[in-house]
Amino acid sequence: MLEDRRTELLERQGIAFRFTGVASRRLGWIADPAGIDSQTLLALGNSRSAPPPDPAPRDVREWLDSARADVLFEATSLNVHDGQPAVDHIHAALQHGAHAITANKGPIVHAYRDLRDLAATRGKRFLFESTVMDGVPVFSFFDQLPAIRLQGFHGILNSTTNVILAEMENGLSFEDALKKAQELGIAETDASHDIDGWDAAVKTAALITVLMDYPIKLPEIDREGIRELTGNAVRNARRDGWPFKLVCRAKRTANGVEASVRPEKILGTQPMARISGASSYVYFETDIFPGLALTEENPGIYATAYGLLADLVRAVGAKSDKNK
Amino acid sequence: MLEDRRTELLERQGIAFRFTGVASRRLGWIADPAGIDSQTLLALGNSRSAPPPDPAPRDVREWLDSARADVLFEATSLNVHDGQPAVDHIHAALQHGAHAITANKGPIVHAYRDLRDLAATRGKRFLFESTVMDGVPVFSFFDQLPAIRLQGFHGILNSTTNVILAEMENGLSFEDALKKAQELGIAETDASHDIDGWDAAVKTAALITVLMDYPIKLPEIDREGIRELTGNAVRNARRDGWPFKLVCRAKRTANGVEASVRPEKILGTQPMARISGASSYVYFETDIFPGLALTEENPGIYATAYGLLADLVRAVGAKSDKNK
Repeated sequence: MLEDRRTELLERQGIAFRFTGVASRRLGWIADPAGIDSQTLLALGNSRSAPPPDPAPRDVREWLDSARADVLFEATSLNVHDGQPAVDHIHAALQHGAHAITANKGPIVHAYRDLRDLAATRGKRFLFESTVMDGVPVFSFFDQLPAIRLQGFHGILNSTTNVILAEMENGLSFEDALKKAQELGIAETDASHDIDGWDAAVKTAALITVLMDYPIKLPEIDREGIRELTGNAVRNARRDGWPFKLVCRAKRTANGVEASVRPEKILGTQPMARISGASSYVYFETDIFPGLALTEENPGIYATAYGLLADLVRAVGAKSDKNK
Repeated sequence: MLEDRRTELLERQGIAFRFTGVASRRLGWIADPAGIDSQTLLALGNSRSAPPPDPAPRDVREWLDSARADVLFEATSLNVHDGQPAVDHIHAALQHGAHAITANKGPIVHAYRDLRDLAATRGKRFLFESTVMDGVPVFSFFDQLPAIRLQGFHGILNSTTNVILAEMENGLSFEDALKKAQELGIAETDASHDIDGWDAAVKTAALITVLMDYPIKLPEIDREGIRELTGNAVRNARRDGWPFKLVCRAKRTANGVEASVRPEKILGTQPMARISGASSYVYFETDIFPGLALTEENPGIYATAYGLLADLVRAVGAKSDKNK
């Protein structure tokens, strides 16, 4: 996507870039400050291993130094327990003096305030717009709502469970619906993070932490997945006009924020009831706007990647585009 | 509202302010660079006239000079023909060296590119977030979607007609529904701008001009109001599950942008069908996100004023809040 928008990024945002490093569990730490062309990078993505540079960086710090990184895109997978290794990667990038952009929501739940404050100290940005709603600028939307008070929100933020529930409504058992979602590439091989509500809970916690300025811990979220729902229960609910959805909720209380993720029956005329497939939805309650909702229908396959690109523009784009 | 959020603006955005001028058709041009306290201002709002300062400014330029204005809030009413006098006011403010913030959509349709370029030349901001959707940051939302291609949109952007249609569904004639909307303070005494689709057309043109970068002229928009709809037609449509809504549409074509504002029957399960009362809705089609929708439910009475305040923060707020 960066290659595809190279001209636009240069002409409209004044951003020129080269790829100076790539790292993965399979490839190890690859760096070349002179630049690695994108064809080589794409070929690396399909190869099983790569010749290590000489001398090869041994860890994320050495790798960032070797690559002379200005920006890190962090895209490891979610670790709900402690957010690692993403927290370390982002910490290292900010220490190194690079902007840190992540699609991984673990670090927000486990280290948001530390990383935010470190970024401020280093004069760099810590950005994470791809973590919730596939790159729709939900956090940035609130940057545009200064001095507003967010009282709570509710929504549907996990695609896998939404697709599984729809397939169950169409007659499949839970197991067959899960299998179908996996065949469609929507659910991962180990889909328990989705099914048991962890993915939705971490997204809920991220919104609460950043937008409500309350660093909620995951165990504080009343979490229940969809594993216990039978096909009959799901079909009967739909037939009665109150379909099941895995709903995320947060509400400010006298002592903090109360939050839940659980299957709820939603009245069919409500917006949440018609969020289908991979679409997502969040409804914010604020003091100025009693109800402000964002809906993302059928996100394209580039949506999450786009969120990372948009974060790059936020971090280093020309201010001159502001008054476009 | 500014007074109400004074502490927050100072502490979170680093914005201190004083009121140094106010002007209206009734009061004339009042300026005092030492500051006018807000109690005096509120009292002026209720008085029939005010003692003119000595010497009294005679026009907007003299008034901006006398007030030593850093920011102008422009809130005259819509002139669909040429956007005046708002265009002149904004032009004068930018020339004077002040940021110009407006709730009036006329200048966007009649002078957007001139005012945008003048603002850039003067290093000031021309902001107008209160013109569409009552202050919901719809333009700023797209600032957060860099390098995206907007192909089209549809939505419901005029409250008065939406309220009138609902009252007609409940059994009133067009005339009685209009009267009720006026009694509720939603429709103006001369509601023809709303009823004949002008308000919705100007909002549609503003979105096309700014977000699709195509300076459409009002006569290019296929515009039809709700005056010809009978109570029976409206009630039958609702009964059949396809209620009437005044729908705004825009679509990019090979030669530019095609746009319309007209009553349409909307399938009851579609999101537009359930936009009720003063709520509004817009659904954007982009290359990255096939469907991205903003819904504003039941805006509070401070929503439009809030949009002006948020524009003030955009113009002069501390950058340090960005990484909050």
